[in-house]
Amino acid sequence: MSETPRIIRKQTGNFLEDFRPGHVLRHKGGKTVTEGLFTTFTEFAMTSNPLAKNLRYARAYGFEGLVCPPGFTMLVCFSQTVEDVSENARANLEYIDMRFGAPLYVGDTVEVETRVLNVRPSSSRPNLGIVHVQSTARKNLGSPDEAVVLTWQRKVQVYKRDDAAELHPGEVEPDAIDCALWLPPYEPSRDYKSLAHLSSPDSYFEDFEPNTLIEHSRGRTVTTEHVGLTAVLDNTSQVHCNQFMIDLDPKQYVGGQLIVFGGIPFTLCLGLSSPDVGDNALGDVRYPTGRHTAPLFSGDTVFAATRVRGKRDYPEREDLGILETTLLGHKFVREAGASSDAAPDGWKKTPIFELEREIAVKRRSHYAG
Amino acid sequence: MSETPRIIRKQTGNFLEDFRPGHVLRHKGGKTVTEGLFTTFTEFAMTSNPLAKNLRYARAYGFEGLVCPPGFTMLVCFSQTVEDVSENARANLEYIDMRFGAPLYVGDTVEVETRVLNVRPSSSRPNLGIVHVQSTARKNLGSPDEAVVLTWQRKVQVYKRDDAAELHPGEVEPDAIDCALWLPPYEPSRDYKSLAHLSSPDSYFEDFEPNTLIEHSRGRTVTTEHVGLTAVLDNTSQVHCNQFMIDLDPKQYVGGQLIVFGGIPFTLCLGLSSPDVGDNALGDVRYPTGRHTAPLFSGDTVFAATRVRGKRDYPEREDLGILETTLLGHKFVREAGASSDAAPDGWKKTPIFELEREIAVKRRSHYAG
Amino acid sequence: MSETPRIIRKQTGNFLEDFRPGHVLRHKGGKTVTEGLFTTFTEFAMTSNPLAKNLRYARAYGFEGLVCPPGFTMLVCFSQTVEDVSENARANLEYIDMRFGAPLYVGDTVEVETRVLNVRPSSSRPNLGIVHVQSTARKNLGSPDEAVVLTWQRKVQVYKRDDAAELHPGEVEPDAIDCALWLPPYEPSRDYKSLAHLSSPDSYFEDFEPNTLIEHSRGRTVTTEHVGLTAVLDNTSQVHCNQFMIDLDPKQYVGGQLIVFGGIPFTLCLGLSSPDVGDNALGDVRYPTGRHTAPLFSGDTVFAATRVRGKRDYPEREDLGILETTLLGHKFVREAGASSDAAPDGWKKTPIFELEREIAVKRRSHYAG
Repeated sequence: MSETPRIIRKQTGNFLEDFRPGHVLRHKGGKTVTEGLFTTFTEFAMTSNPLAKNLRYARAYGFEGLVCPPGFTMLVCFSQTVEDVSENARANLEYIDMRFGAPLYVGDTVEVETRVLNVRPSSSRPNLGIVHVQSTARKNLGSPDEAVVLTWQRKVQVYKRDDAAELHPGEVEPDAIDCALWLPPYEPSRDYKSLAHLSSPDSYFEDFEPNTLIEHSRGRTVTTEHVGLTAVLDNTSQVHCNQFMIDLDPKQYVGGQLIVFGGIPFTLCLGLSSPDVGDNALGDVRYPTGRHTAPLFSGDTVFAATRVRGKRDYPEREDLGILETTLLGHKFVREAGASSDAAPDGWKKTPIFELEREIAVKRRSHYAG
Repeated sequence: MSETPRIIRKQTGNFLEDFRPGHVLRHKGGKTVTEGLFTTFTEFAMTSNPLAKNLRYARAYGFEGLVCPPGFTMLVCFSQTVEDVSENARANLEYIDMRFGAPLYVGDTVEVETRVLNVRPSSSRPNLGIVHVQSTARKNLGSPDEAVVLTWQRKVQVYKRDDAAELHPGEVEPDAIDCALWLPPYEPSRDYKSLAHLSSPDSYFEDFEPNTLIEHSRGRTVTTEHVGLTAVLDNTSQVHCNQFMIDLDPKQYVGGQLIVFGGIPFTLCLGLSSPDVGDNALGDVRYPTGRHTAPLFSGDTVFAATRVRGKRDYPEREDLGILETTLLGHKFVREAGASSDAAPDGWKKTPIFELEREIAVKRRSHYAG
Repeated sequence: MSETPRIIRKQTGNFLEDFRPGHVLRHKGGKTVTEGLFTTFTEFAMTSNPLAKNLRYARAYGFEGLVCPPGFTMLVCFSQTVEDVSENARANLEYIDMRFGAPLYVGDTVEVETRVLNVRPSSSRPNLGIVHVQSTARKNLGSPDEAVVLTWQRKVQVYKRDDAAELHPGEVEPDAIDCALWLPPYEPSRDYKSLAHLSSPDSYFEDFEPNTLIEHSRGRTVTTEHVGLTAVLDNTSQVHCNQFMIDLDPKQYVGGQLIVFGGIPFTLCLGLSSPDVGDNALGDVRYPTGRHTAPLFSGDTVFAATRVRGKRDYPEREDLGILETTLLGHKFVREAGASSDAAPDGWKKTPIFELEREIAVKRRSHYAG
């Protein structure tokens, strides 16, 4: 054998100039939801909705099994797109029109594809630009219960491989993906009321008033666990798990340390809010828009609040209503001399996440006392 | 939308003045034992009993599947009561008369209720008092294999919301809960001996002598993993997972840092003892009393010992005996100048946990050699 | 009860003088692969082969279910031998002739036995010597699908209990264990090509050239998670999980800190290599030899490279070829003044692992294109 082998270093992920409007990326891998994955993310996030915890309850409501909560469904589906879309990203700018479809159960296999809608250069930074994509996750392809689980658009700030490269022109309209929340029918013969003690007594549709801010009472500290959790999701972005890369040039990276994958505060905020606004939900309908507003690091404690913006009837379902909310995540950062109403002296309240969120919530009149 | 929304901050958990003797709290949620949860806690705790590890072995003994070990069963059942009983507690004072019933398997769903027995004020601290409760965990409610899994009492030191509030008077006797360890019948036709190499050769009933202290040889360091583990158990107490709350006023909290949930040393001590005293057990029968004697923090290493206090026959089961033991947990704390027989110089041996424990142990005469 | 109980401290694991050539150790416990265990190790290691992630894909290829990837299979089987073989070891010196057999699925139960081949004293250190053993892992003993899953030899440097003890003489030849990789038949009627987008497009047998070094692009930082992961594997060696033992005498232990169990870099290196060389493998055939060349600690970042040494046809399978590779793991260690081509200034590249590895790789001609 020769002493000087040919050296190959494959490039992973796409760079800005690689994206072509109209092109469809069929993502590799796919992911079967095991009971291990389900536990890792559902319970980790402190989800309190019994549909995700209590099989007796989930079946009594007409679901096939424990129901993956929306944060977990989002994590599994979204992560499948990371390598192709955002492995070489600087930041995820916006989630747009994320809609839920069929429920995701243990044993289901998710596969995802992404359509490139548009690619734009940055006006100020020649090495960056914005990619706008639409992704759709389907489960159990080729089987009788094949179904769309989640569809969403996102805008991502992606690096160029070569600053001088031309970008692919063009703009494509998003596909009209048929994806609406599947709900078990309301059947008066089911004894829902005998299960009512298993969820919060004060989070039915009737309990909410627009123009209310619910400050969820619990906080949760994120540890270095995030490195392994991110890997388990197949999220391959190195800013979450490669400390050596950070150590080589800390100033290049936000905060000079490993950043927690945005999906983790996403799902934690949903979990922290669940006793107050998610416990009597049958599902999340749609996230019109959402974004991360500051990075999260190991050691930070995540808090959440929900602003109730409005309420409306659920079409053709008098047992349900749609709650229009904004989910807000924040942390506190030590800052000498800081003083405000929003945080204790010496600390600064720092918003980390916001998500417009429409939730399908049960009416007490139909499900409880 | 108005610029000044109404702000709501729901209170979670009960305070001392909320508890009424005789009142039954039906806990929210419920919990289905997934294979993920099973692995997380059974294997984490270094349980060595093949009933919890080897499906071939468990079935050959007459169990339906892998058997949740006692520490895991306790964790799952106990945690369901935390929000209502001890979210606002300062300390868990005592476990009393904890008895095991039906085996817990993967796929089973546990639901728990708690009866308030008594509420007493603290004689010295006006903001605290003691609640005495009795909890019972049942599985698979409404199905043919509905059964009691665990029942126990505990005394908890709980904060008052309002120092001046009156407490509810009265004292209620504990219910006589029918809960005795389910055991597979001994069937001479089963070839138990062909499986004997899978458990310890020297932990049969015949091997134990009263007045013996078995110092289990292994130790186990607890890491920040405890934060996530506690969340996975639905334990919502903030002293385990909210670092910001601690940082705001470290002197208010024991040790000025996150405290490890007591269920973790509870199950770890059981696991560390299992090669010596649990490997040939068919189950734990009863824990007459138990308590935590010092807090545990991330970075501490847990050790365990078992004092064999007595032995007695198992009623109507000549293949088994009951081992009467006390399980003792400890850690070592650095202390300049410390010197004793119990610890290396410069370290102080600190007891953290003790549990009276009665174990159903196989007789070698029936199962091996 | 007397105040001075008899104190017992059982010794765990064998010491050098306990090993007898020709003796067979039937290891305790056994281990059923739960979905929790599968997720913990398969996904943790960033395995990208869809056979381990996508149930639809695995079944379409003719497997019964998700296939445990080789690193996970090795971890589960190997760990069963730790208590008896290497709990009292200083170092694992070499893996030899590790061969894969039947696929390991969720639900399978593994049991392992080890034959002692040879015991030799150290020439320079009277308290140490080398044990050479052969281990074989079988699944589902006594059932119709009982099969050998993995067989391997290893050499371990083990401590003596008593420096003056005589060693058992003799040398035994390894058994000829029938263990060859099970492969699903190639069936032209299956529509493999419709699944080709789920694996890497450029890692088919045709894509590799001997005398190539593939530097895998990703790195992965190991955290204190390793303590819990090691316990979950039943690896009882205290150098991985007992910080107190290290603190008592740091100089006695490599690096003065907890060492990461070698199985973790073993499986991580396999995972990091999988997008480039494992994505289109149907299985790993054999590891002729392998060794750890430096310890790994929490905080280190693991990188991997694969040297392609040769290619050969797969006997009687024209759809496959065998890729002869060496898997190389490394990390970077800060070293003032260090300067080389292999690492950034101020860092030293430190090899941690090497493994000769033969892989059964699909031909594009049969599965894609």
